[in-house]
Amino acid sequence: MASRSFSVEELKATFPTRTVTAVLQCAGNRRTDLQQVGKTSGDPWDVGAIGNAEWTGVRLADVLDAVGAPDASDLFVAFTGADEVDVEGEEALFGVSIAMSKARQPDVLLVWAMNGEPLTPEHGAPLRMVVPGYAGVRSAKWLTRIEVRDMPSDAPIQAHDYKLFPADVTSDTVDWSRGLTINAMPLNAAICVPGSGESLPAGEVRIEGYAIAYDRRVSRVEVSVNGGREWQQATFADDPETHWGWRRWTLDATLAKGRQHLVVRAFDGAGQGQPERPDTMWNFAGYLCTAWHHVHVLVE
Amino acid sequence: MASRSFSVEELKATFPTRTVTAVLQCAGNRRTDLQQVGKTSGDPWDVGAIGNAEWTGVRLADVLDAVGAPDASDLFVAFTGADEVDVEGEEALFGVSIAMSKARQPDVLLVWAMNGEPLTPEHGAPLRMVVPGYAGVRSAKWLTRIEVRDMPSDAPIQAHDYKLFPADVTSDTVDWSRGLTINAMPLNAAICVPGSGESLPAGEVRIEGYAIAYDRRVSRVEVSVNGGREWQQATFADDPETHWGWRRWTLDATLAKGRQHLVVRAFDGAGQGQPERPDTMWNFAGYLCTAWHHVHVLVE
Repeated sequence: MASRSFSVEELKATFPTRTVTAVLQCAGNRRTDLQQVGKTSGDPWDVGAIGNAEWTGVRLADVLDAVGAPDASDLFVAFTGADEVDVEGEEALFGVSIAMSKARQPDVLLVWAMNGEPLTPEHGAPLRMVVPGYAGVRSAKWLTRIEVRDMPSDAPIQAHDYKLFPADVTSDTVDWSRGLTINAMPLNAAICVPGSGESLPAGEVRIEGYAIAYDRRVSRVEVSVNGGREWQQATFADDPETHWGWRRWTLDATLAKGRQHLVVRAFDGAGQGQPERPDTMWNFAGYLCTAWHHVHVLVE
Repeated sequence: MASRSFSVEELKATFPTRTVTAVLQCAGNRRTDLQQVGKTSGDPWDVGAIGNAEWTGVRLADVLDAVGAPDASDLFVAFTGADEVDVEGEEALFGVSIAMSKARQPDVLLVWAMNGEPLTPEHGAPLRMVVPGYAGVRSAKWLTRIEVRDMPSDAPIQAHDYKLFPADVTSDTVDWSRGLTINAMPLNAAICVPGSGESLPAGEVRIEGYAIAYDRRVSRVEVSVNGGREWQQATFADDPETHWGWRRWTLDATLAKGRQHLVVRAFDGAGQGQPERPDTMWNFAGYLCTAWHHVHVLVE
């Protein structure tokens, strides 16, 4: 299989244009809740390391076909970005990979537009990957190279980061060749409004947030305004539901004066619920916090 | 689209034979744990309403193609069995349905053999459906009829049963047109050996069980021998892992004399963990108990 170069203009001229709505979520979203359990590495993300957008580009599958890439289940497709990253003191180009079976799925795109506008530099212009359903790290920005390999990328981001380990593994004892490579993302939900620590006037308040289950779909969102003793069904604000997008939800509730404790939990299309407590999923790198999300407010 | 009949011999002669390893699990498996929280309808299944087998037959997709069935995403494929069932006092033939998109998947089979032997009557001879990854109820036994429809089956098993509702819905208030139709099944794990209430000699014991995540795959099984205070990694006993099968696991542990409390929990390929407590998923029909599984033993 030969090497071949495409400009973005050549991609646009050669392949059909596709648009997909998809969430990109950092594997470290909600890490702060794990950091309440115990110290972790990584940035202290609250519930905002996630975004939902409409992405436009061409199918990776079409590009792979055009260059004659084999479609074998034991192959990998590696992406290199133009940005340098520092992993464990090692400086290297950003590099990640996904399995060929995922790479061939029709919603995996090489993208030049976001929400109908050309990509901005911070979102990966001129060209980025969007791998719906996978942790954001696999959607490489500032894409310079795609390579078909018989092994995952050996770039440090792929090989020495973004893996899930049991609670008894630490940054001192970790063997990076083990652990679960974080690709598909689990069920999650968060309260965005009101924010934690906010003061609110007494009376009716609209509670808002998101839930995300990717291709499993979100089937139900439940909100408690009394710390989890009783639950109400939230209303979905997004219509229609997209395959890879989040579902925004709202609940109108009447809050009494005093310190109030809001909680959200979701269920997916397989009836799967979220674990209740972050200590049951703590890991030293602070990935995949999917515990019920709590917000404390003061009602005056 | 016309109607067409096939004998089992004609199916064997007309279509390629396929074999798939798959778990069939009742949506009410582990219902007894939900019944500890509160009364439910349905049979009191412990952890045994599940089985893993190798199924041989022909692809439903091939049969649908042969009769010219359209492949439209808004269609359903309904199965009728020869058995009569009683749902809410209504006597009717067993009938269920699945979406056309699932029906077309290559592992959905019309089956005449189980583990290399002809189906026995109690397993659905002469012909049954096997719908891997879905609740056992969709894998109709004693298959007599397959129908392509623009609506789900209106047989009572499909329309008035096997749906998931929030905890505040009861058998008196249920609106069966709502709720989540239980198809894809959630992550689960159970301890099979030792059994709850068993007496064991002190010393080393091999703890055994299963975990199931279907196409999400089981990534990790953790066992506690002290009621959940500390966790050890179980060893997978099945190798290689099948796409739709369970993973059996073992843990060798040393148990001290006295009452001991064993717990198991699993994580899937998306890093999803199980909810801890059955009261967080209780529903009046006792479906989809996926809480951590506990076994109490007396070590003498």
